[in-house]
Amino acid sequence: MLAHLIASAAEVFDRLVIVIGPEMGDVAELAAPYPVVIQHERLGTAHAALQAEAYFGEGDVAVLYADNPLISSETLTRLLEARHAPEVGLALLAMRPAEPGRYGRVIAQDGLVERIVEWADATPEERAVDLCNAGVLCADAATFRRWLHSVKNDNAKGEFYLTDVVDCAVADGVRVHAVEAAEDELRGINSRMELAEAEAALQTRLRQKAMENGVTLVAPETVFFCADTTLAPDVLVEPHVVFGPGVTVESGAEIRSFSHLEGCTVGTDAIVGPYARLRSGTSLGTGARVGNFVEVKNTTLGDGAKANHLTYLGDATIGARSNIGAGTITCNYDGFFKHKTIIGDRVFVGSNAILVAPVSIGTNALIAAGSVITKDVPDDAMAFGRPRQENKPELGKRFKETLKARKENG
Amino acid sequence: MLAHLIASAAEVFDRLVIVIGPEMGDVAELAAPYPVVIQHERLGTAHAALQAEAYFGEGDVAVLYADNPLISSETLTRLLEARHAPEVGLALLAMRPAEPGRYGRVIAQDGLVERIVEWADATPEERAVDLCNAGVLCADAATFRRWLHSVKNDNAKGEFYLTDVVDCAVADGVRVHAVEAAEDELRGINSRMELAEAEAALQTRLRQKAMENGVTLVAPETVFFCADTTLAPDVLVEPHVVFGPGVTVESGAEIRSFSHLEGCTVGTDAIVGPYARLRSGTSLGTGARVGNFVEVKNTTLGDGAKANHLTYLGDATIGARSNIGAGTITCNYDGFFKHKTIIGDRVFVGSNAILVAPVSIGTNALIAAGSVITKDVPDDAMAFGRPRQENKPELGKRFKETLKARKENG
Amino acid sequence: MLAHLIASAAEVFDRLVIVIGPEMGDVAELAAPYPVVIQHERLGTAHAALQAEAYFGEGDVAVLYADNPLISSETLTRLLEARHAPEVGLALLAMRPAEPGRYGRVIAQDGLVERIVEWADATPEERAVDLCNAGVLCADAATFRRWLHSVKNDNAKGEFYLTDVVDCAVADGVRVHAVEAAEDELRGINSRMELAEAEAALQTRLRQKAMENGVTLVAPETVFFCADTTLAPDVLVEPHVVFGPGVTVESGAEIRSFSHLEGCTVGTDAIVGPYARLRSGTSLGTGARVGNFVEVKNTTLGDGAKANHLTYLGDATIGARSNIGAGTITCNYDGFFKHKTIIGDRVFVGSNAILVAPVSIGTNALIAAGSVITKDVPDDAMAFGRPRQENKPELGKRFKETLKARKENG
Repeated sequence: MLAHLIASAAEVFDRLVIVIGPEMGDVAELAAPYPVVIQHERLGTAHAALQAEAYFGEGDVAVLYADNPLISSETLTRLLEARHAPEVGLALLAMRPAEPGRYGRVIAQDGLVERIVEWADATPEERAVDLCNAGVLCADAATFRRWLHSVKNDNAKGEFYLTDVVDCAVADGVRVHAVEAAEDELRGINSRMELAEAEAALQTRLRQKAMENGVTLVAPETVFFCADTTLAPDVLVEPHVVFGPGVTVESGAEIRSFSHLEGCTVGTDAIVGPYARLRSGTSLGTGARVGNFVEVKNTTLGDGAKANHLTYLGDATIGARSNIGAGTITCNYDGFFKHKTIIGDRVFVGSNAILVAPVSIGTNALIAAGSVITKDVPDDAMAFGRPRQENKPELGKRFKETLKARKENG
Repeated sequence: MLAHLIASAAEVFDRLVIVIGPEMGDVAELAAPYPVVIQHERLGTAHAALQAEAYFGEGDVAVLYADNPLISSETLTRLLEARHAPEVGLALLAMRPAEPGRYGRVIAQDGLVERIVEWADATPEERAVDLCNAGVLCADAATFRRWLHSVKNDNAKGEFYLTDVVDCAVADGVRVHAVEAAEDELRGINSRMELAEAEAALQTRLRQKAMENGVTLVAPETVFFCADTTLAPDVLVEPHVVFGPGVTVESGAEIRSFSHLEGCTVGTDAIVGPYARLRSGTSLGTGARVGNFVEVKNTTLGDGAKANHLTYLGDATIGARSNIGAGTITCNYDGFFKHKTIIGDRVFVGSNAILVAPVSIGTNALIAAGSVITKDVPDDAMAFGRPRQENKPELGKRFKETLKARKENG
Repeated sequence: MLAHLIASAAEVFDRLVIVIGPEMGDVAELAAPYPVVIQHERLGTAHAALQAEAYFGEGDVAVLYADNPLISSETLTRLLEARHAPEVGLALLAMRPAEPGRYGRVIAQDGLVERIVEWADATPEERAVDLCNAGVLCADAATFRRWLHSVKNDNAKGEFYLTDVVDCAVADGVRVHAVEAAEDELRGINSRMELAEAEAALQTRLRQKAMENGVTLVAPETVFFCADTTLAPDVLVEPHVVFGPGVTVESGAEIRSFSHLEGCTVGTDAIVGPYARLRSGTSLGTGARVGNFVEVKNTTLGDGAKANHLTYLGDATIGARSNIGAGTITCNYDGFFKHKTIIGDRVFVGSNAILVAPVSIGTNALIAAGSVITKDVPDDAMAFGRPRQENKPELGKRFKETLKARKENG
């Protein structure tokens, strides 16, 4: 959700800074590559905004909130345009919610904001106003900095409130303009239910955007996107698919049911799934195929390469047109280090092969089914590493009879 | 669904008895640990209630139906309270459905029920009454028993109808009170469509309850719960997850997409899935991880233990911080008996290992990738059980050429 | 979606012909076994209909469109009946859409169509008419052929429009009857969004039909059918299941969550999934079971046979009551040819066995866990093909210490 807010803001603003609390380290990760500033003491929204002061630079500054993650780039553009209208020194976002409840009210006349009154301090007449403050605002950096420093904390909680800059602006004699936007975009998230609703609204938008871009979604309501999912026109997505962050899918590719993708690139005409899991660092070439119950991590599959069944490929490079048999496992981890598996072009890896990395398989080589491969295999060679079979006549029958008798005797 | 009804009733009543038909053995299983009584002949609802007479005891008795499974504990509490109001001898549940259709009508005046009239016997004026009988009722055990025994079967079908106890109560001069509840809770299930709708209504409630308890559901509409699913606050559930009966998940745990859990406990901060299947008897310790395409049955994973890829663990105990490599299989079944696999702390099981139970792996031991382990491995030892690799130069190429030629020649 | 249209039409008409554009080869595949005619030049809808002239035969001809795929067989039956009413020479489908927009308007009086006027040519009064042309029509073959040949292309685009046969019919003095149907069935598909909506409408119908036929769908909105999916009464389908083309499931079978079926038959009381993938050519006998992370292709499982975990079965025949252990792989493909695996009755295949096809396992045989089977196994025999285990004392500990030291030293 935060990713969506960052994506929206990045479309409109050149520079983003994320202010977080001291125990929100995982948010910092999500915010990358944008700079993150920690507000060590929670002294109010104006104080939080001041933590990012070093990044204000010149031009305009806007303050957004993580609990209004659904704001669209269109609305932010309108906010910025309003700020640039003649004589306007401050623009803010407002909404008319179905249930205005305890939101602060925006007191305005002829389109110009006179002040914002908190619900607790409002008269019955003011409470009857249905235009509510969404908290988001935008002003010229230098002026905004001055206002922020003049905000006081002489209130019940002893906090510095960002809303007070509206009074500063009015006192300065500049116009304050309220830009109205839909409640759906602006309402705050105060419960898990509202979080789920906001996520659902975001997913609906992402699905529509994908379809407008020419992606076929057989059952849009069962497909989950990230804000940064990039699907080319003529991609087909079957029901029940989850996209994590950082996925790009090229034209003509098919993502089949029950697939789960994150941090990967799927090439033109490639086919993924059903039940394929592509993890971070995966890249599939043109026409490559990853099939059912296959996990791929930090691995490149060349053009036309296939790994169709029950396979784990980690830290590997698979050459073009190579075929990885069912049940193949790359042993990339020894408990301490990760090692690489390099497979050349047109290699045929037989079923249930175990490739103990670091190991290289040469171009055009063959690995016999069920082999444990611990040493490099040269080009064109065939590698065996499997036991010889022995049949013991009647032993199967005797074994069963023994067990059966034991079971019957308890 | 029955599980939901039992759970609702158990919140309000001390004792439950389930009356089933002679061929409903699987319902008996669902009803455990509550006693089950079989109604051998289907002689009507009053006759069914009498089958459970031995369990009536003292206090109040209520009769519920499996085809009204959505009744909430709140509604049952109101029913019980109504029964205890002054001079009330019988309380029943009623509703005002959008389409009253052929439901029996509750004829009441000043809040007191005079009688229930079946649709077939009702006058046009009575059919115009929109208060309908839901069949559920509650009375003092001794009185109820006496009424039940006095019900006659002198009707078209020759059955003993529970509804007739209303007449008994009126004849006795006690007050009969109708407690109204929402149609959503009370309407009967008469088709697969209505069953699906009732299930959907139940799921909506269970999802809301989970979110109110502080569970994050990214896409609530794709997550399916059982009535007894217990998720601690700050559990995260991704889209597309199914919970079967008997699941408890501790705080901070994540259940990732496409996971399927039943009869298991997931410890604090553990991560499950995507594509993890936890079956009956599974217990994951703090911070344990079960990853994609992994099935776990009747198995304990210690704190921080991991089984991340393509693995089957059955009847096993895995020590703390042990790592189970990709493709590992416990062979717990010989066709007749199930055997146990015991793995100590900090064991590293290499990929695609086969652990033929009964077998024990000592603390800190290592199993080489691709090994078949049939004998116990001591603490600190390393076990090999895999073939040596042999490379045959040029054989891969020759083999391919031969097959290719054969294919081209048909 | 096209499959649905074909299925609807096939219920009402004896013969179907599909007219496609020159680059729609994959539609031709979908249309099988019905004949396909290619319209090499796109010269309009009347021209397209004429491409199929050779197939008109005698009796009635109707023209349908791939972008109205949701028409039901009931509506087509009504169209045919209307065509056969006294003095009616042409019947067409019409609708009253919520937003009539730029649809052609049907100008009718007393139930008889006078003409169809395109939106661009319509007067304001005509545009106010809310009965719109759906394009679908039905007439006697011989007359229809004559009308088609008389249609001219003297219009802006130089195309032959099928709508013009209405004028032919009126000029001939025969009655033209408009059959009204719901917009849901008739509206055209002009975007990916509309395609998704149409698919959703179709899925809703297929789910309802299944439930009316006695199938239990726990969460209908998460189950996806094909038009030809055939489920017997008393089949149970859990949440999150996808049915591809050509699936038949017999009574009492259970399809558990996250399963994906296509081109297969599931026998009475069989249990499939969770996470089972049944592919084309699969047939499961009575009471057979296919469990989690198992892929089955072109394979027959006999009555009571089981393959419960992490298995790939391709081009195989499994006898009755045989048990396929976890992790078993049939190596059916050598890069050029597919080979068969034949397994007799009551065979026990140990976990992680590799069956290198072509290979046969005799009745009652046993395969030791972890064996690579390359040669046939006789009836009653036990086959081993796995390495002997060796434990190296202290080596595990030393190995770990070495790696740990190396990691610490960077």
